[in-house]
Amino acid sequence: MGSLEKERTTVGWAARDPTGFLSPYTYGLRNTGPEDVFIKVLCCGICHTDLHQLKNDLGMSNYPMVPGHEVVGEVVEVGSGVTKLKAGDRVGVGVIVGCCRECSPCKSNIEQYCNKRIWSYNDVHPDGKPTQGGFAGAMVVDQKFVVKIPDGLAPEQAAPLLCAGLTVYSPLSHFGFKKSGLRGGILGLGGVGHMGVKIAKAMGHHVTVISSSDKKREEALEHLGADAYLVSSDAEAMQKAADSLDYIINTVPVFHPLEPYLSLLKVDGKLILLGVIANPLQFVTPVVILGRKTIAGSFIGSMQETEEMLEFCKEKGLTSQIEVVKMDYVNTALERLEKNDVRYRFVVDVAGSKLDQ
Amino acid sequence: MGSLEKERTTVGWAARDPTGFLSPYTYGLRNTGPEDVFIKVLCCGICHTDLHQLKNDLGMSNYPMVPGHEVVGEVVEVGSGVTKLKAGDRVGVGVIVGCCRECSPCKSNIEQYCNKRIWSYNDVHPDGKPTQGGFAGAMVVDQKFVVKIPDGLAPEQAAPLLCAGLTVYSPLSHFGFKKSGLRGGILGLGGVGHMGVKIAKAMGHHVTVISSSDKKREEALEHLGADAYLVSSDAEAMQKAADSLDYIINTVPVFHPLEPYLSLLKVDGKLILLGVIANPLQFVTPVVILGRKTIAGSFIGSMQETEEMLEFCKEKGLTSQIEVVKMDYVNTALERLEKNDVRYRFVVDVAGSKLDQ
Repeated sequence: MGSLEKERTTVGWAARDPTGFLSPYTYGLRNTGPEDVFIKVLCCGICHTDLHQLKNDLGMSNYPMVPGHEVVGEVVEVGSGVTKLKAGDRVGVGVIVGCCRECSPCKSNIEQYCNKRIWSYNDVHPDGKPTQGGFAGAMVVDQKFVVKIPDGLAPEQAAPLLCAGLTVYSPLSHFGFKKSGLRGGILGLGGVGHMGVKIAKAMGHHVTVISSSDKKREEALEHLGADAYLVSSDAEAMQKAADSLDYIINTVPVFHPLEPYLSLLKVDGKLILLGVIANPLQFVTPVVILGRKTIAGSFIGSMQETEEMLEFCKEKGLTSQIEVVKMDYVNTALERLEKNDVRYRFVVDVAGSKLDQ
Repeated sequence: MGSLEKERTTVGWAARDPTGFLSPYTYGLRNTGPEDVFIKVLCCGICHTDLHQLKNDLGMSNYPMVPGHEVVGEVVEVGSGVTKLKAGDRVGVGVIVGCCRECSPCKSNIEQYCNKRIWSYNDVHPDGKPTQGGFAGAMVVDQKFVVKIPDGLAPEQAAPLLCAGLTVYSPLSHFGFKKSGLRGGILGLGGVGHMGVKIAKAMGHHVTVISSSDKKREEALEHLGADAYLVSSDAEAMQKAADSLDYIINTVPVFHPLEPYLSLLKVDGKLILLGVIANPLQFVTPVVILGRKTIAGSFIGSMQETEEMLEFCKEKGLTSQIEVVKMDYVNTALERLEKNDVRYRFVVDVAGSKLDQ
C-alpha cells in the first residue's frame, strides 16, 4: 500500500512565518484514497483572507503555509469510489475540504457551517497532515469538496467564483433574493463586492454601490454596470436613499457603524455581513425594531450552491474582472492587495508558473 | 354638525409632568366620525412603555398625558361607515390608532411599520387633538384600529394580549415559528416574556427561559410551564446549551451583550429584539457569520395579526397572568412595575373605577 511507495510530492509557495513572504516549498501529498481526487492546479485566486492567514492576523496560523482557496485544476487521477469525476475533468476547490458529515448542518447540505469543517489550508487533514492550498502544483481533495467547472467557463474566470462569487451568491439565494425586481446595495467594492455587483445585476436587481468615497463611482457605474452610487459621508444623498433597499451585502472587513446602512433598508430589509471583523459592531435598536430589519451573516456557501452558482454564472455569461499573474509576482500581488491596488481579483496562473519543474 | 354641539368629555387619569404621577383629568373627545367607534373603556393593561412615556424617558412626552394602550371596551356608538362593529360589541384597542394608508407597509397590511403611524396616546390626531389612552372612561378610535374580542375571552384577560401578547405572537408568526417541534428561548421574564412562554408553549415549542438570575426558576418551570431554565451567568450551563435553539425572543429593555445568546442559537437561528434600548447593542461578527445567524427586530404586530392572535389565544385557552387593580391604585402599580414587582401584568379595572361619575 501507500506506506511502501515513495511519497508523492509537490511544490507550493509557502510562508514560513508571519511576514507572510512566500517562497518555494516542497511537501508530500497523500496517495489518492478511494474518495479522493488528485488535481493538477491550473490557477488560483488571491483572497483577502489569504493575507490575514499569512500574517497570523487571527492568531491561528501554522507554518509553513501554502495559501489559496480559489483553485481551478484538472483531474489527474481519481480514487476507486469516485464516480462523478474522471481524469481530464476541469474542477474547482474552494474554502473547505472536509466536514463531519454527521451534524445537523452536514445533514442539511450546508456543510460550510459544520463546526468540524476542515479549511483548504492552515488546517489538519484526518490523516494528521497539514492541509495546503492552491498556490501549488497539485492537491489531493475529497470528492465531496471538488466541483466540476462547467464547459465554457475559463479557468481563470472560474477561480474567483469559488470564494468571492460563492460568498455573495449564497446569501442572495438563501435569503430569497434570487429573483428580479429587487433593489440591492453592495457595501464595499473589493474582490467580493465587485462579484456582488455582477451577480446581483445578473439576478435582475437595481444595484447601488455604497462606498466611503467618490473614488470608485466611474468604475462602479461604467465598468461594473451598477445603477447607482452612494457615498456614505454624503448625508443628503443617504437621507434621500432612506428606506429604499431590500438588502445590503456588506463586504467591509473593518469596523464601521451599522445605523447609516440599516437606515437605507426598507421595512423587512436585510443587512448581510460577509466580512469577519476583529472589533465588535454596534447598532441602536429602534432602527431594527421599528422596521423589522435583519442583521444576518453568511459564510461562503455549500457545495450544492457552488454548483448552482457556477451554472448561473455560465448561463448569464458573467465574468469576473481579474489580473492574471505568475507565481513569481505573488508577493508583489499580496502587497498590492493589502493596499486595495487591484481591480478586482488577482489570479495566479499556477500551471504557467511551472512550479513542479 | 359637531361644532354646534356641546363637546363630549371623558375623565382619564393623566400625568401633568415627568414625575409621571397620575390624577383625574377631564378632556374632550371628538364626535364619532363616519369611520369612528366610540368606546366605553372596561379595562386597560399597564405596559412598561407607559412608564417610559410618563417619565419622558424618550424626551418626547407631552402633558397632560393619559397613558394606556392595552384597552378593552364596549362599543357605545359607531359612525355611518362602520359595518364590522355595532353597539354592545366587546372590542380592543392597542398601541396604534392611525396610519397613512398609502405607504408600502400600509398597503402590505403591516401598518405598524408606517412612518406616519399615530400612537394611542402622546401623539396628535389628524384633527389636531392630542391622542389619549385607555386609562379613561372612553375613547373614540378609527374602526381600522379596533378589533373585536372573541367571545369567551374575558376583558381583563384580553387586555395584555393587545400589546404584550401581540408583540411576541407577531414575530413568532412572521419569522416562520408558528409550527410545533421547535426549540425556543425567552430572554427576560416580564410582562412580554411571560406571554412569550405561554404563546410559544401553545405553538408546541420546547421553551427555555433565560434569565440573569435563578430567582424566577420555579415560577418559569412550575407556573408558566417552561421546559428549561438557563441562568446566563452559569458558563457551564450556557456552554452545554450552545447551538440548541431555533430562536430567542429577547425582551430585555436595557443594555446587554448579545454574544452569549447568539451562541445558544443553532445555525440559521434568529435572535428577535423586542425592547427598544437607549444604548447601542453590540456583537462580534464571527458568531453571526459562521452560523448564518440573524439579529432582527419586531414591533408589536398588525391589526390582522391582532385578530389572528386573539383567535389563537381563545382556541388554545391561553390566559395571561395578571393582577387586576382599580384606578386609585394606579400610581402604586406603576411604582411596583418599575421594581418588577408584578406577576406579570397589571390590568386596571377602568369600568369598575367609575371615572366618569
